[in-house]
Amino acid sequence: MTIKIMQNVLAANDQKAAELRALLQRKGIFMLNLISSPGSGKTTLLEKTLPLLQNKFKVAIIEGDVETDRDARRLAKFNVPVVLINTSGACHLESVSIEKAFASLDLDNLDLIIVENVGNLVCPAEFDIGEDAKVALLSVPEGDDKVIKYPLLFRESHLAILNKIDLLDHANFSKEAFYTDLRQINAALDVVEMSCKDNLGLENWIAWLEQKIAAKQ
Amino acid sequence: MTIKIMQNVLAANDQKAAELRALLQRKGIFMLNLISSPGSGKTTLLEKTLPLLQNKFKVAIIEGDVETDRDARRLAKFNVPVVLINTSGACHLESVSIEKAFASLDLDNLDLIIVENVGNLVCPAEFDIGEDAKVALLSVPEGDDKVIKYPLLFRESHLAILNKIDLLDHANFSKEAFYTDLRQINAALDVVEMSCKDNLGLENWIAWLEQKIAAKQ
Repeated sequence: MTIKIMQNVLAANDQKAAELRALLQRKGIFMLNLISSPGSGKTTLLEKTLPLLQNKFKVAIIEGDVETDRDARRLAKFNVPVVLINTSGACHLESVSIEKAFASLDLDNLDLIIVENVGNLVCPAEFDIGEDAKVALLSVPEGDDKVIKYPLLFRESHLAILNKIDLLDHANFSKEAFYTDLRQINAALDVVEMSCKDNLGLENWIAWLEQKIAAKQ
Repeated sequence: MTIKIMQNVLAANDQKAAELRALLQRKGIFMLNLISSPGSGKTTLLEKTLPLLQNKFKVAIIEGDVETDRDARRLAKFNVPVVLINTSGACHLESVSIEKAFASLDLDNLDLIIVENVGNLVCPAEFDIGEDAKVALLSVPEGDDKVIKYPLLFRESHLAILNKIDLLDHANFSKEAFYTDLRQINAALDVVEMSCKDNLGLENWIAWLEQKIAAKQ
């Protein structure tokens, strides 16, 4: 019975996501779904990214959070639209919330929408929100076993960012184990190693984004 | 409609949790529900804890994981029963799974059950599994804003462990901000600062556990 309810929820979500994906296709907007644990550095990544994109592309942010506006406020200083979705305790975003957020955006005047999902490695990977690509962000102190423990996210993603590489000397993290597991789960996955703290790897991430945005236009 | 379904699920879960709590009371077993993000160090904490408790108490572990047995295998080398619950994609444990795990344990011969929940700061805090206490584990590299962003967990917990304090010099983490938010959300919460890597703070955690176990017997 529980399984049946869950299937209905997922089917309704997927239907709405397909509608949003078709809408984004017509508008020529690339939308990505940024997923990680709490504290992997999603908002910091956006703080570093927005200044590098602002003069080239029209960008909007949809910010998913369980209940506060902390992350949305951190991004409010940049001159881009930020739409906050508070999930009221839910651990992931669903397509119906993205549709509501779209109502606050001028879709005729955008190239890129970045959705910062709720911090969680499990359910956000299960719920399609109409994105063109999922981006999985993993940080070094979380450990090299997270790829194999949360395979769905890495199977579903188009890009994995390994963040906080400045902590490699201080954490128990084997890059060899990380890449071995990653190749086993998704051999086609692009990977960018990054340290937002030390501004390492941002140019590779921006190049990846630019290529995806160009392909959509 | 979705809300109604959710309330039914939670009500059924709470009813079963109350039954388990009464059973643990009769058996004199203290059960704790260990909750954190992926990679905060739950399993490493258990690896450090079990050798310190084994000669004093009869301990069992219930290990919640989305799909692998990685964590359970890490704990198999200790001479305690480890029951693995694979949630098949669900992001939290529910009381009905704990009841099934109990069937594999000799409840007449235990003082302490530690449940390692699925790595997630959201839903595990919402689902009562019949535990005596929730323990929230937060690691320094996740950032000092996690208390205010995930307040339910810290409101519901009896103890917060701040782990990986060896990384304080390498991460953007203000202990002052952390404690200010914590006091605002749950003034009664016990806190232990810890570094499993450097074996710091373990004695305070063990003392906390010993006191709780003794109070239950």
